[in-house]
Amino acid sequence: MSQATLLSGVLAPVITPFKADLSPDVERYVKHCKWLLANGCSGLAIFGTNSEANSLSMDERRMLLDALLAAGVPASRLMPGTGCCALTDSVALTRYAVEQGVAGALMLPPFFYKGVSDEGLYRNFAEIAQRVGDSRLKIYLYHIPPMTAVPFSLALVERLLKDYPGTVVGMKDSGGDWKNMEAMLKAFPGFQFFPGSEEFLLPAMRLGAVGTITATANIGPAAIDRLFRNWQSAEADAMQEEITDFRRAITRFPQIPALKHTTAIYTDHPQWAVTRPPLVSLSAEQGQALAAELKGRGFDMPGIRG
Amino acid sequence: MSQATLLSGVLAPVITPFKADLSPDVERYVKHCKWLLANGCSGLAIFGTNSEANSLSMDERRMLLDALLAAGVPASRLMPGTGCCALTDSVALTRYAVEQGVAGALMLPPFFYKGVSDEGLYRNFAEIAQRVGDSRLKIYLYHIPPMTAVPFSLALVERLLKDYPGTVVGMKDSGGDWKNMEAMLKAFPGFQFFPGSEEFLLPAMRLGAVGTITATANIGPAAIDRLFRNWQSAEADAMQEEITDFRRAITRFPQIPALKHTTAIYTDHPQWAVTRPPLVSLSAEQGQALAAELKGRGFDMPGIRG
Repeated sequence: MSQATLLSGVLAPVITPFKADLSPDVERYVKHCKWLLANGCSGLAIFGTNSEANSLSMDERRMLLDALLAAGVPASRLMPGTGCCALTDSVALTRYAVEQGVAGALMLPPFFYKGVSDEGLYRNFAEIAQRVGDSRLKIYLYHIPPMTAVPFSLALVERLLKDYPGTVVGMKDSGGDWKNMEAMLKAFPGFQFFPGSEEFLLPAMRLGAVGTITATANIGPAAIDRLFRNWQSAEADAMQEEITDFRRAITRFPQIPALKHTTAIYTDHPQWAVTRPPLVSLSAEQGQALAAELKGRGFDMPGIRG
Repeated sequence: MSQATLLSGVLAPVITPFKADLSPDVERYVKHCKWLLANGCSGLAIFGTNSEANSLSMDERRMLLDALLAAGVPASRLMPGTGCCALTDSVALTRYAVEQGVAGALMLPPFFYKGVSDEGLYRNFAEIAQRVGDSRLKIYLYHIPPMTAVPFSLALVERLLKDYPGTVVGMKDSGGDWKNMEAMLKAFPGFQFFPGSEEFLLPAMRLGAVGTITATANIGPAAIDRLFRNWQSAEADAMQEEITDFRRAITRFPQIPALKHTTAIYTDHPQWAVTRPPLVSLSAEQGQALAAELKGRGFDMPGIRG
């Protein structure tokens, strides 16, 4: 696989709609994915943190991937999350995704045990790479210590890049720590690096990032995509300021419920606001405040209704 | 189900042996479980932290449970870990275990998301209780913030006990914080409380605990069981001191690898020392130091060989 086929640009960690019985609403899921691809997303990081993927069983994840492909979403636009706590799950889900032709796999470290060694994490990824044993496999390491408390160190990334070149290819960094992003970008030229928030898009692009995988792309991908495509323009700093301001307005609310609530409003489908436990939907008060905030900004999700 | 049939005493969170390909070694697993029951364990908390259960797939866990039952281990002695990140997994595994007749289910909270609300955790357990919908279900809440970073608050426990009486029945507290254990024991008389370390066995028994579910029971259940059975005797404090001293000697080493290494030595089966990633076995130096420590103490696992 040539570098040219690797994903870049704005990827949404796609939120997952649930029916009243909390089963995934496949039809609305497919619709949302297609809307995202038509409105600024280059790709879909399905089964991420914002997707409540760890609240879904393996079968549910496979079913949703199947549904997207059956509906004509190209596998080449997909970067599913396939990193699980159990090695056998990670191998099975990654293999399945690769066999469907996905562009990459965004992999959490096994996240139950804390204080694990770089050696143990290395072995996890080495086993996965070897067991999947497919040259199409492109692993993006998912660094999100606020949830996992299991970080990827520079030394671990260096070792994986050295031992699995062409397989371990990139990272999503959702740590929120610019110093870490800067260090990763400077240490590994050619690393397919995505900051996990558009707040860092411009500075990261200037150091060689290839885009961003960001929660807010679920509701407003176009503005982020505009900065991605024009990061070298004179207007880039102003664009960055604008999207950062929007993100901060949204993330005053609990993030995943806020994205789902927003989608519920603009699709006119209240059920979209539902989360699986342990997450809870916004309260009525929060929902009203968010709606007012969005309205005040003249926010829209064009074409999402119906 | 009467109180009389609830598990009490010393339960081991059974360590899981792996073959060279890292698949579970069923034969040695069954043998270890039988040894534990014959040597001081009242029950087996299979699929716990020390079992590397989160490093096993759902199918692997079901398979191991099936193997124990097929080998004649009574379901009434089992308290499998069935709490997963995904609601659908928790429901499926808990239902399966209850259908096999297990004495209880030791349930982690969903542990991927951090900073979740009591309301979200409540809904998780409420959904599980309702969906499993079986009066035989006995849930023991598994409080282990050092791994999950998702604690059970007193208010949450109170609400669950009130709304699901006879279903939510107890707790394993592996937080290592005596103040929390004391608060739980004092707040909820009749709560089936197990400290997650024998270090707290005597003080917890004095406040109404029903036993302990502890890692070191994997290698030395007899001494812990002796204190459990004689906690009101004049020798109880001396017994507590002795088992605490042993535990501290062992937990100077990485805990799960040390338990497996010890079992490897006394079964004369080096493969027992193997862990799944992200855990790693003891280094040669650590292994030698542990072996010397055990030998110096005249430690033995009587009847474990062969």
